Amino acid sequence: MGRLSTLFGPERVAVIGASESEGSVGRAITENLLASYEGEVLAVNPNAEEVLGLTCYDGIAEVDSPGTVDVAVVVVPPHIAVDAIRQSGEVGIENVVVITAGFGETGSDGAARERELREVAEEYDLNLVGPNSLGVMSTPKGLNATFGNEMATEGDVSFMSQSGAFVTAVLDWAAERDVGFKDIVSLGNKAILDEGDFVAEWGEDPDTDVILGYLEDIDDGEEFIRTAREVTQDTPIVLVKSGRTDAGASAAASHTGAMAGSERAYEAGLEQAGTLRVESVQELFDYAQILSGQPLPDGEEIAIVTNAGGPGVMTTDAVGDSDLSLAEFTDETFETLRETMPEAANIYNPVDIIGDAPAERFESALETVLADENVSMAVVVACPTAVLSFEELAEVVVEQQQQSGLPVATTLMGGKSVGAGQEILAQAGIPQYFDPARAVGSLDALTEYRNISEREFQAPDTFDVDRERAREVLQGASRRDTNRLGVEAMELLDAYGIPTPQGDVVDSPGDAEAIAEEIGEDVVMKIVSPDILHKSDIGGVEVGVPPEEVRDTYEDLVVRARNYQSDATILGVQVQEMVDLETGTETILGMNRDPQFGPLLLFGLGGIFVEVLEDTTVRVAPVSEPEASAMLDDIESAPLLQGARGREPVDRAALVETVQRLSQLVTDFPAIVELDINPLVATPDGVTAVDLRLTLDQEEL
Amino acid sequence: MGRLSTLFGPERVAVIGASESEGSVGRAITENLLASYEGEVLAVNPNAEEVLGLTCYDGIAEVDSPGTVDVAVVVVPPHIAVDAIRQSGEVGIENVVVITAGFGETGSDGAARERELREVAEEYDLNLVGPNSLGVMSTPKGLNATFGNEMATEGDVSFMSQSGAFVTAVLDWAAERDVGFKDIVSLGNKAILDEGDFVAEWGEDPDTDVILGYLEDIDDGEEFIRTAREVTQDTPIVLVKSGRTDAGASAAASHTGAMAGSERAYEAGLEQAGTLRVESVQELFDYAQILSGQPLPDGEEIAIVTNAGGPGVMTTDAVGDSDLSLAEFTDETFETLRETMPEAANIYNPVDIIGDAPAERFESALETVLADENVSMAVVVACPTAVLSFEELAEVVVEQQQQSGLPVATTLMGGKSVGAGQEILAQAGIPQYFDPARAVGSLDALTEYRNISEREFQAPDTFDVDRERAREVLQGASRRDTNRLGVEAMELLDAYGIPTPQGDVVDSPGDAEAIAEEIGEDVVMKIVSPDILHKSDIGGVEVGVPPEEVRDTYEDLVVRARNYQSDATILGVQVQEMVDLETGTETILGMNRDPQFGPLLLFGLGGIFVEVLEDTTVRVAPVSEPEASAMLDDIESAPLLQGARGREPVDRAALVETVQRLSQLVTDFPAIVELDINPLVATPDGVTAVDLRLTLDQEEL
Repeated sequence: MGRLSTLFGPERVAVIGASESEGSVGRAITENLLASYEGEVLAVNPNAEEVLGLTCYDGIAEVDSPGTVDVAVVVVPPHIAVDAIRQSGEVGIENVVVITAGFGETGSDGAARERELREVAEEYDLNLVGPNSLGVMSTPKGLNATFGNEMATEGDVSFMSQSGAFVTAVLDWAAERDVGFKDIVSLGNKAILDEGDFVAEWGEDPDTDVILGYLEDIDDGEEFIRTAREVTQDTPIVLVKSGRTDAGASAAASHTGAMAGSERAYEAGLEQAGTLRVESVQELFDYAQILSGQPLPDGEEIAIVTNAGGPGVMTTDAVGDSDLSLAEFTDETFETLRETMPEAANIYNPVDIIGDAPAERFESALETVLADENVSMAVVVACPTAVLSFEELAEVVVEQQQQSGLPVATTLMGGKSVGAGQEILAQAGIPQYFDPARAVGSLDALTEYRNISEREFQAPDTFDVDRERAREVLQGASRRDTNRLGVEAMELLDAYGIPTPQGDVVDSPGDAEAIAEEIGEDVVMKIVSPDILHKSDIGGVEVGVPPEEVRDTYEDLVVRARNYQSDATILGVQVQEMVDLETGTETILGMNRDPQFGPLLLFGLGGIFVEVLEDTTVRVAPVSEPEASAMLDDIESAPLLQGARGREPVDRAALVETVQRLSQLVTDFPAIVELDINPLVATPDGVTAVDLRLTLDQEEL
Repeated sequence: MGRLSTLFGPERVAVIGASESEGSVGRAITENLLASYEGEVLAVNPNAEEVLGLTCYDGIAEVDSPGTVDVAVVVVPPHIAVDAIRQSGEVGIENVVVITAGFGETGSDGAARERELREVAEEYDLNLVGPNSLGVMSTPKGLNATFGNEMATEGDVSFMSQSGAFVTAVLDWAAERDVGFKDIVSLGNKAILDEGDFVAEWGEDPDTDVILGYLEDIDDGEEFIRTAREVTQDTPIVLVKSGRTDAGASAAASHTGAMAGSERAYEAGLEQAGTLRVESVQELFDYAQILSGQPLPDGEEIAIVTNAGGPGVMTTDAVGDSDLSLAEFTDETFETLRETMPEAANIYNPVDIIGDAPAERFESALETVLADENVSMAVVVACPTAVLSFEELAEVVVEQQQQSGLPVATTLMGGKSVGAGQEILAQAGIPQYFDPARAVGSLDALTEYRNISEREFQAPDTFDVDRERAREVLQGASRRDTNRLGVEAMELLDAYGIPTPQGDVVDSPGDAEAIAEEIGEDVVMKIVSPDILHKSDIGGVEVGVPPEEVRDTYEDLVVRARNYQSDATILGVQVQEMVDLETGTETILGMNRDPQFGPLLLFGLGGIFVEVLEDTTVRVAPVSEPEASAMLDDIESAPLLQGARGREPVDRAALVETVQRLSQLVTDFPAIVELDINPLVATPDGVTAVDLRLTLDQEEL
C-alpha cells in the first residue's frame, strides 16, 4: 500500500467545523461519516457542545490522542482554515481533506491564501486534498468524507475528479447501476496532492483494478508520465482530460484556472504515459466496466455469434472501425459448426445461427468458437425471438466466458425483454449494450490496454555527446546578448552528433576562401545576422559559388546586409557545402516547451506537408528509440520516407538517431526554449541538418 | 398521400395462409392483426374452416368482393406463394406483403422463384413488399401485419429495415421508451418495393416527420438520390447503411446477397441525396428523437447553461467537436445575467450559474440566453444538488423551450434523481442524456438537417457540346475493336469543351511536321498505340522537339515501337504543344461506374497526393455547379489550388467547369466505363487535359 493508505483507510477521522446547522456542509459531512464509516468520528467546533450526538472539541489539539487521528476534514470558513490545517500538522495528523472553498479559484486574495496553505502543508509534510474539494470516499471501511448525497457501493474502480459536481453526478448515476468503487477523491484545487499522487497510490493498491479520472489539467506532466507509465503496466488508467478543444480549454481556464498546456502535448503525453484517453463520459464508464469485469485478450481476433443477419453486419462494421479483426476459424471449427448448426446457418464469421436459435444453440456455437485457437474474444449479438430466452442466453454466455477465460461482450438487442438477462451478465462482469458498436468498442479498449500493459518502456538512449562544447555555443550567444540563434549555432548540433554540412561561419573573406578550398567544390554562402530573418529576400544567400568567387561574394553579401539595415549585427558569413535537395527528402525536426509536459519534439516532412497539410507528429522528450521510431510512421506522408513511388527509402536509422540526439540535447539544456532544424534533409545514406533556428532563455543557462 | 396509402391504411386485409397452428407464422400474423387493427381481417386457408374465430376461405378469389381487399399478406410455403400472389393480382388487390421466405436469399432455385414472383408482380402492377419480410405496421389504424411480438406505439417516425430481426429488436427496445412510430416496413428481399418507394411515400405523408432506415444496399442509387433529394427538403432521412467497412460489406453480401457497391459511392451518393448517415444504432434513434421533437435552429450558435463547471467544460468540448459554435452573447444579455445571477456565477458562455442554483435560477438564465439574438439553441447541463429538483428543472426547461421556439437538449447528470424529470422532458420532445456529448451531438444533427433542408438542389448545367463528334470518336474506336483508348481520343474531350493542348494524332511524318509548324514552337511527340501502355519506358515519348526535327523523330518513334512489339497496332503519333508542368498544378479527374450509383467522378491532385496520400473526393454524376465546386474544396490539399505558399491560385472557374463538362460527357455516354484525365493541368489562366485513358463497353454504344 502507498503512503495514502491511511487517507483512504483511516481508523479515526476528525471533522474540523462539524455542525448541526441544517443545510450546512459541516453537517452533511458529519452525517455522511456517521452513516456508514466503521471507524471513529470526532467533531471539532468551539461553538458547539455536541454535534449529532458527538462530543464537540474546541480544537483539534483538544481531542484525545490527536496524533492518532488519521484524517482531518476541514470545513471551517476560509479565513481560519489555514490555521486549522497548521494545528492538524502540529498534533501529527498526516492527512487533511480541505473542503473549504475560497482559495485559488477566487482571485488574488484566494490565491495568496492558497500559497499560505501550501507552505503550511509542506512544512508539516501533509497529505492534503483540496482545498475546494467535495471530499474523499472509500468503500471498504464505509468512509464517506464528502458532502454529497450518495455513498458509493463497493467495487474495484478508483476514481479521481477535478470537478466535485461530476463526482455527485457519477454517484447518483451509479446508484441505479451495477457500478462499484473502491476510492473516490474530489481533487479540488490540487494545492498538494494531485493526479500523479493518486495514480501512484492506486497503482500500489491491490483492491483497485481500474483507475478513472476526470481532469482539466495535469500539474506536472513529466512526473505524471513517469508514474503512469509504471502503473499502467498492471492497472489501466482511463481519463477524460477536458479542455481538448479551443473552446473547451478556455472554458476550463475560467472554471478552475487550469493552465492550458497545448492539446497536442496532452495528447502525446497521455499516450506516452500509457493512459486510455476517452472523449465522453459514456466511454469512461464503458471502458471501466469491461476493464474491471473481463480478462485481457491474447490477440485482436474476434468471433461474432448472432441469431440475426442484419445486426451481425452492423457488428462486423463496428469491428471494421476498430483495431480488432474478424477471426478466421480453423478447419476444425468449421467442421464442428457444420455438424452442430442447422444447414441454413452461416458458419463463417460473423456466425449467424439464425432466428430459430434457442439459448442452447448459442451455447454450442460459443463453445466451439471460443475453443478456436484463432479466436481471442467474442461478442454475442441477439435479437428477441419467440424461441430465445434472454435470461437463459445470459446464463450460457456467462458459463462459456468463464469456461474459456476469454473476454466476451454482449448485445441483447431489445429493451423490455432484456431485463433479467442484463442482471446476470452484469453480475458476471460481462458488458451488455443495445448498440453493437459499444460492445465492440469496449472489447477494442480492452485490447488497447492489453497492448499498453505489454509494451516495454525502454529508457531513452544516452549518446556520447560533447555537452561542454554545446554549453559554450549557448553561452557564446548569451554573451552576445541575443536570444535568437541561427546557423551560427550549428556547432551545437555537431556537438550532439547531428550531422551538419561541412563548412563554418567565418568573419573574413580570407577565412571564407579557406573553408571553400577545404570543401573543394561549389559552396552555399549565407549572411549570418540575428537582425536578418529572411536572408533570401535581401539577397543574403548565394548558392553554387565556385571557390574562386568566394572572396568577392563575401563582400557582396555584407554590402547587401548593410544596405538592408546599416546597424545590423553581422556575425559573419556561413560557407557550407551544397546539400543535394533533389535526391533528399526535406523533413523538419523541432522542439518547443510545453508548460505542463516540458520539451515537445515535432517531426514532419517539410514544405507543403508542414505548411499546407499540417502533417506532423509530436512526442514529449526524452524519447526512447521505439518512440522516436514511431514518430516516423505516425505522419500521413510516412510512405515518402519508406520509398513510395519508386524512390529509395531514406536512412531510417540515421533519422531515428537524430530525433533521439535532439531529444537528449533539449533535455540537457532547458535554456533552449524553441528549436527548429528545417530542413533536415534525409537521403538513403544519412541525414543532414541544413538550417537551424533556436530561441534561448538566458536565465536558464 | 402517395400510392402506398392503402398499404399502410387499408380497410380490409386478407391473410393468405392464416393458421391456428401453434408457433406458426400464419397464426402469429393473424393474431397480431386481430389484436389492434381497426379494419376487417379475412383468413384464407383451404385446409381450415375457421381460424381464430374467422371464417376461412379456400382462396383469395372466394372472399366476398375480393377487389376491395387492400392488402394480401402471403404466408403460404414458397412453392405456392407465387400462385397466391397471381390470384391476388387477378382479383384486383393492389398491395401484397410477402412474408414467405425461400426466394433470392436461398440460392439458385430461390432466385428463379423470385424472378417469377417479380414477373407476376409487374404483370399486375402490384405494390409488393418482400418476399422474406417480417411484414408491415402502421399505428394510426392499429395495423400489425407482422409476425413479431410487439406492436409499435403511435408516433411520427416511419422506419424501414432491410433486417427483420432489427425491426423486432427496435420494437422491443422502444416498448420501454417514449419512441413512437407511424409506419414500419421490413423490406425483405425488395423484389418490387424498395427504399426509394418508401422514401417517396413517406415524403408525401403528413403524419411522417422523420424517416429512419436500416439498409444493407440500395437497389437503384440514381433514383434514390433523385427521390431523397426532394423528400429531404421537408422530411429528414436518417440511415444506417451497413456494410460500410470491407469486413461489413462481405458480411452483408453473405447475409442478403446485397451487392456491394463501393463504400465511396454510397458515402457520396447518400450525402448528395441529403440523408443523414449515422454509424450506430444509438445515433439513429438519438437523431430521430430530436428531429421529431425539436424545431430547427436558425443558426449554429449554442448557449450552455449549467450548475457545474466541470460538466460545462465537457459540454464545451463536445461543442468544439461539432459543427456548432459557442454563442457570443450581446451586451444586453451580459447585463441581464450580471443583474440576475449571483456574483460567483460565470456569465460567459458556458454560463455557470453555480452549485446552489435552484430551478428558478436555471429558468431565469435560460430565458435570458434564449432571448439573445445571437443564440440559436441551448443545452442545459445539471448535476444533482441538494437545492435542485430535476422535476422542477424539467418543467422550466420545457416552458422556456416552448416559449422561445428554439431547440433545447438536456444533460441531467444523474441516474436515480433524474426519473420524473426525464419523463417530463420526453413528453415535450426534449432529448435528455447523461452524457453531454450526446446532447450536443443531437443538436448538431438537427443543425445539419437544417442546412440540408435549406440547400437548393440546382440542376446540373447543360453545356453546348458536340455530342455527335464525341459519338464518332467512340464509334471509331469501336470499329478498331478496342476497348482501351488513350490520347487518340482527346478529340472526345475537345468535343465536350474540355481544353486540350494544341496538336493532333497524325499518321505520317509530313502531317506531323505540318502540325508542328502550326504550333510554331517545340512540341511533344508520343507514339499512339493501344498495345503500348507505358510509352515512356520504350522511348515512345519525345519532349521539346524543334519543328525541324519532327519528321525524323516521327520515324524514330515508330521504329522504337516496332522494336518493342513488331505487330503492335500503331495509330500514329501525337504531336502536341508543350504544357508547362512547372507553373501549373497537376490534378487528376476521373470516372468509374458504380453498380448502384452509376458514374462516379473522382477529383484530386496528381502525383503523391493521389498515390501516397490518397487525397481524393468523389461525387455521383451528373453534378451541379455547387457540387463540382465543392469537390475542389473537399480534398486536404485544397489550399494548393487556392494559392498556398505564395503561389497564384489556379483558375477555379475553369476547373469547376471542366468537372461539370466531364460529368455531362459520362452521363451522355454510358459506354464510357472508366475514364482518367491525368494530368489535368490547372494554371492561373485555365486548365489543360494533358493525357487521357478510357475504357469502353462496346455493347452500350
